[in-house]
Formats: sequence, C-alpha cells, structure tokens
Amino acid sequence: MFQPPRGTRDYLPDDQQKKNWVIDQVREVYEAYGFEPLGTPAFENLEMLMIKSGEDIINQIYNFKDKSDRELALRFEHTASTVRVVATHRNLVKPFKRYTIGPTWRYERPSETRFREFWQADVDIFGVEGSIADAEVLSAVVDAFSRLGFEGFTIILNDRRILKSIIQLAGIPEEKSLDAFRAVDKLGKIGREGVIDELRGISPNEETSMKLLDLLGLKGNPSEVLDQAKVMLQNYEAGVKGCKALEELYKFAKAFGFAQYISVDLSLARGLDYYTGPVFEVIAKGYENYGSIAGGGRYDEIVELFGGSPTCATGVSFGVDRVTLILEKKGAFADMALGAKVYVAPVNKKVIEEAIKIAQKLRAENIPTIVDMMGRKLGKQFEFADKKGILKVVVVGERELAEEAVTVRDMKSGEQTKIKLDELVSVLQ
Amino acid sequence: MFQPPRGTRDYLPDDQQKKNWVIDQVREVYEAYGFEPLGTPAFENLEMLMIKSGEDIINQIYNFKDKSDRELALRFEHTASTVRVVATHRNLVKPFKRYTIGPTWRYERPSETRFREFWQADVDIFGVEGSIADAEVLSAVVDAFSRLGFEGFTIILNDRRILKSIIQLAGIPEEKSLDAFRAVDKLGKIGREGVIDELRGISPNEETSMKLLDLLGLKGNPSEVLDQAKVMLQNYEAGVKGCKALEELYKFAKAFGFAQYISVDLSLARGLDYYTGPVFEVIAKGYENYGSIAGGGRYDEIVELFGGSPTCATGVSFGVDRVTLILEKKGAFADMALGAKVYVAPVNKKVIEEAIKIAQKLRAENIPTIVDMMGRKLGKQFEFADKKGILKVVVVGERELAEEAVTVRDMKSGEQTKIKLDELVSVLQ
Repeated sequence: MFQPPRGTRDYLPDDQQKKNWVIDQVREVYEAYGFEPLGTPAFENLEMLMIKSGEDIINQIYNFKDKSDRELALRFEHTASTVRVVATHRNLVKPFKRYTIGPTWRYERPSETRFREFWQADVDIFGVEGSIADAEVLSAVVDAFSRLGFEGFTIILNDRRILKSIIQLAGIPEEKSLDAFRAVDKLGKIGREGVIDELRGISPNEETSMKLLDLLGLKGNPSEVLDQAKVMLQNYEAGVKGCKALEELYKFAKAFGFAQYISVDLSLARGLDYYTGPVFEVIAKGYENYGSIAGGGRYDEIVELFGGSPTCATGVSFGVDRVTLILEKKGAFADMALGAKVYVAPVNKKVIEEAIKIAQKLRAENIPTIVDMMGRKLGKQFEFADKKGILKVVVVGERELAEEAVTVRDMKSGEQTKIKLDELVSVLQ
Repeated sequence: MFQPPRGTRDYLPDDQQKKNWVIDQVREVYEAYGFEPLGTPAFENLEMLMIKSGEDIINQIYNFKDKSDRELALRFEHTASTVRVVATHRNLVKPFKRYTIGPTWRYERPSETRFREFWQADVDIFGVEGSIADAEVLSAVVDAFSRLGFEGFTIILNDRRILKSIIQLAGIPEEKSLDAFRAVDKLGKIGREGVIDELRGISPNEETSMKLLDLLGLKGNPSEVLDQAKVMLQNYEAGVKGCKALEELYKFAKAFGFAQYISVDLSLARGLDYYTGPVFEVIAKGYENYGSIAGGGRYDEIVELFGGSPTCATGVSFGVDRVTLILEKKGAFADMALGAKVYVAPVNKKVIEEAIKIAQKLRAENIPTIVDMMGRKLGKQFEFADKKGILKVVVVGERELAEEAVTVRDMKSGEQTKIKLDELVSVLQ
C-alpha cells in the first residue's frame, strides 16, 4: 500500500476544510489591507535560491535537474521568488503590496508537527522606506490572527542596526557580527551559558561576551527600552537610527491599533542574515509554548542583490499548517459546521429525480447539499447524514410531492416539519 | 536577471486575482454540491505514479531523488494521489465526494498557452456504481462553468464498453483494443485517413479499419444514437450495458438540468487507458476552437489496482489556467473590480495617523483599503489611486477632521462630497 512520501502528509477533508477556513480568513484580511496575490512557480532556478541563502541551503531543499539538465529546486520560502518578480518587473507600481499563501518544501527531519511540505502565508510591502510599512504588515498579521480567534499577543521588536551597534559597543569585530547575530539568536533556546559558548572564537574574550549579553538584556516597554538604548548607543549612528525606526513603528502601531502588544527586546536577532532594519516576532497569548507564530522584518538590500533597482522591503510570514494545528488544539473548530448542510433523501427510487431537482434548487442558492446516490433505505440515509454531521434532512416522498411539499427533519431534535417546496430555500437558508 | 524556470510563468497580481476569482467560483459551486476538499503532497513516490500511467510517464514528468535516495516525482494530475488516499483509508464514508484545485506539473514543450506548471480542478465521486454519479460530476462542472459566465455547452458522451464492443464487432482482436482506442481518439485531430494509417498493425486489414470507422460514425441526439447502437450491438453484452448506462446518465441529466447539452458520439475514446464506463468531454459554445474545456469518465478498477477494496469511481477535470485565459479573451474580467476599492489620502504628514485609523475602520468591515505610506502630495496620491483602478478616494484633511468629517472623491466623475466619519462605512459599502 502506498503512503505519502516520507515527511509529507495528506489533508483528509475534515482537516483540509479547517486549513481552507484559516486560509480564507487570512486572505480576506490581507485583501482588506489592499495586499494583492502573486503567483510564482513551485520550483525556481537553484542558483537564484542560493543568492540570499548560500550553498548550505542545498542540504535543506529538494533540488533536481529537469530533462534539459537545468538545476532547479522546490521553493523553501516565498521571499526569493517575490524578490525575483520585483527585481525583473521594474515598472511595478510602488508601493507594491503582495500576499502569497502557498506550499513550500524543506528536507528537514520530520516530526508530528513538522512536515517537509508546509504552507506559508506572507505579506510584504516593497518600496516604502518608513516604519509605517513595517507597522502595516504587522497590523495585517495581527488582524488576521484576531480574525482566527486569537485573543492577545506579544509582538517582540528589535532592529538589526541596534543589534549591530551593541555588538560593536561590546567589542566584537564588525566582520563577525553576522556570526554574533546567529549566536545571540539562540539565547531563548540555549540560555546565557550556551550563547557565551557559541561566542567563543567570535568574541575576543569571555568578558566581551558577558558585556554583550548584558547590553542585550534590555527588554519590555518600548518607550522606556528605546530611551535607555538611545543613551547607551549615542555614539553609534546606526544604532540610534534603529531606535528611531522602532519609535516610529510604535507611534504608527498606536494608529493601527496594536501598540498595546509591543515589547522591545534588544536580544531578538532572527536567524536570517538578510534583515537590515526592524525585525519582529509575534507570540500568541496563552500559546507561548509554541514560540513565535509569525515573524519577519525589513530587508532593504535584497532586490538590488537580485539585479533590481534598490527597493525597500518589509514583510511578515507565518506557517499555515502550524497555526491550523494550534487552532485545532484550542478547540476553535469544535462548533464549526464544515461540509454539506443539507441532505436530500428520496424515500424510494421513484422519486430520485424529484430529489435531484430539489437538491439543484438548494445548490443554486449556495446551500451545500448532498442527495442520495446509493438508493439506500431512509434509515440508512439518516445514518449517513448523521455521520457527515448534517443538521437538516429533506425527505422526499410521493404523497408530500403530490402536495408540492417535503418533510424537513432536524437531525439534532429528530423533529419533522412539512414544508411547501416554494418555501424550502428560505426555510433552509 | 533571473526569470521563472523555462516553461513556467509568474501570475502578477492582475492575473492572479482573475485566476483566484475563477477558483473561488468553482470552489463555491463544488462545495454547494457537497464535494469536500482533499489535500495531497505536490510530489509522490515515482513507483506509485507509474502504476496507472506506465513507464512512459517518466519522459513527461519531473522526477528526482530526495536526500535519502527515494525516487519521487511531482504529480502530473490529481487522480493518482486521490486514489492512493481512497485505497489506504478504507474507512472513508462512501460515497466519498472530493474536489481538488491545485498545481500539477508536466515536462512538455511549452507554448504561449501551455505551461509546465498548470492548475487542475477535479471533482470525483468514489463508491457509486450508478450513472447518477457520472451525471452529478458533469452537473457540477457545467454549473461551475455557467457561474463563470459560459452560456451553453456541448457535452459529448460515450462509454468505453460501447467502444470495446464496436472494436470487436469490426473484427479487431480484443488484446489490441487499447491500441485501437488510442488510434480512434485521434479522429478529430488526424481525420479518417490518419486513423486508418494508425490502425495498420492493429486492425487485421484496411477493410476492418474502414468498417470500424463506419460503426463509430454514429453521433448526435442521445436517444436516437443509443437506440441504433443497442440494435447494432445486441450480441455484445458489454456494449449493451454501455448503452444502458448512457441512457440512465441522460435520464438523470434531465433532472440535474443539463440534458439539453448532451450529444452521444461513439468515436469519443479519451486518451487515458483506465476508463471503464462512460467517458465525457465538455465543449463551450462559442469556444469550440479551444477543443474540450473539461473531460473525464468512469474508472472503476483503479482503487483496487492501488491495493484498496474494489471501489467505483468517476470524475471530471479541467485546466484552471486555460479556462482563465479563455475568460480573459472573452472579456469576462473587463468590468470586474479587482484589488482595493478605497484609497485613504492624508493631505499632509500631520494627519497620517488619523488616515490610518480611518483605513483600519474600513478594513474591519472588509472594504479593501489602501492608505498612503509615501507621504506623497495629494495630486500624486490621486494619480496612484487612478493607476490602481480605485474608484473612491477618502481625503483626510485637518479642517474636515475638526468637523468629524472627510471628503470622498469619486475618481470617475471627479465629484467630491463631504461625509461625516460615522457615516463613512455605510457610504462606501
């Protein structure tokens, strides 16, 4: 018997309907913000995917050759493809606000919650220098999560320029700052001692490492943390710029309506190397053990790296499968009516065609309707409707039809009501 | 500069919005019929994909090895994956009605209208022996196309058992019937002479080939054609069964409401080998030059071939990209308002935050809204809104704000109206 390839999974209808519901909500919110969908192929030229991710990525992705020996690879995120589009279509009207919700692939060790095929939902804005764009992508994702039923968040903010200046201030050579970012990024996972260990060879000595970690300790209320950071970094132009960018982001967050969730944490680095300004992570209240459920940041240099005109860019991304799973555990789908709402049950073969006609009328009104196709007895049909979680069964019998009527059975109460055919749609709507 | 890999394309927002609109309409119709979504991975085990398609498929698909040397391939259609799910999940409640709308990949010679990544939309029903299921999948696809704006169709029907019996009747050995199907299938493309040529080596002699083509000439009104076919095939049990199946399909089509479109054509074979009963193709009226826009048939033996319990199956499929392209040429999107509906324009930097707050209120009501993020002058903002095809611009100025009001500009007429803030949502809805 064949199974899905290792590390991948099927979404049977119950699960796929939940995932689709999540995607639909998110899409509606993103479109309300004026983000527009962009479609790019599932695979890209391998060389392109390596531009911003380096050769290491080959160990983590599905790469292959096509029949003409082109080196291709399945996309492992949406950003590179989108940047390619922005770089090559120079006439795109700016700001260019796009969303993408679709599958990505990584060859990682699979677990119960981590799959090799996983859907990512991205919003990005190209062409805006100001922090208003960072605030808008964050606002869109916060609104999307609120629409999904999450109540409250912690949004952790930092700025790469602050981090860079702190690393300088601590005495770590500039050319090692990317390595230092990566070490610092593990603070939450491996703790202070772990990071000091990681910093060996990056930091000149243990004292420098300790100093770095002390400087990174500032976190909490945005105004307070940024006021202190500005004093601390007064001799570092980049760092001060970073502080001002976050202050502006915070100011706009008040207008967008999510400022109450913001916490600044000077140790937040985020793994990816390409961020140039604000970086952010979103944690859902009550679900802190899942870590961040969304993350992103500003990456003003990549479009140029891909051969385009210099173009500012910022965005947020989250994993659709993971969020669906959290919602499932939260019980968010428990009362959700998925699938067909109405079952049309002919009492015998003679009335099947009448039953079909009735089903067709309901379907034309977008009422999800199933009609018996098995010639089953009424009792079996009720059983089937019950298994499918359908609440209303329309029983079609000869006598009732003669009176232009049907019987509607409420599957919860068992109550049966005779309904005139021309009233059926409005009764079931 | 990087391009999408050869044979693939990007969908920039305008095109992606059109494609999404098509997908949304189709999905709504399929869900109204009680079809449920199924999600399967983009790639499958190569061995599995070859079960029903043979080794030849390797020349047409993207196959590769993962890092553990598993032989995988991108799916080239949705059926095999779905059949795998039905075969392995024996407890799925039957009838199992599922739809899948998603990308598939084939390494074919690309053209302006044929891409190596293309989306297919499938509806299939598992577990129903009667022609009511064939009628229902056809009805769903006809309703979906009607929803998309197509007016009128030709639905060509045949049955593999009729074809098989005709091949026997003509004197072609049974073991060559699949080869004969494939030759006959090309009748539309290569004509009578071409098929006779193809039949050399399959058919005992040219006379047999001519006889076969004569027998296959019956087409048109379902009742008439099937009456004649039943007489012609009276000694062939399979053929008579095929006729009866199509008669029943036609009877149900009347109840579903699409019988007027049906034409029976005894030469319709359809390329794929695995069909066992009715086969169908849908041609859109006025778009005959595009050939069939949807096709399918009954395949009762595949689930067992995949290791499952014997399970009847029937389905229809169509290409989403192609149908979107036809709709585009038809002008179906000309008057469609895509993207943001409202643009909020702050007159200067002082009122940006108020502008954001207003945009947030509209977004909360699902009114797709863009707010200026560039600090542009009002004239430039109008230009931008115009480029994006936005019809209403909300101008936010200090004086109006003092009166709890804004100015709404109609971009078509240029008319400007002062609107109270608490009436803005209802005015723009």
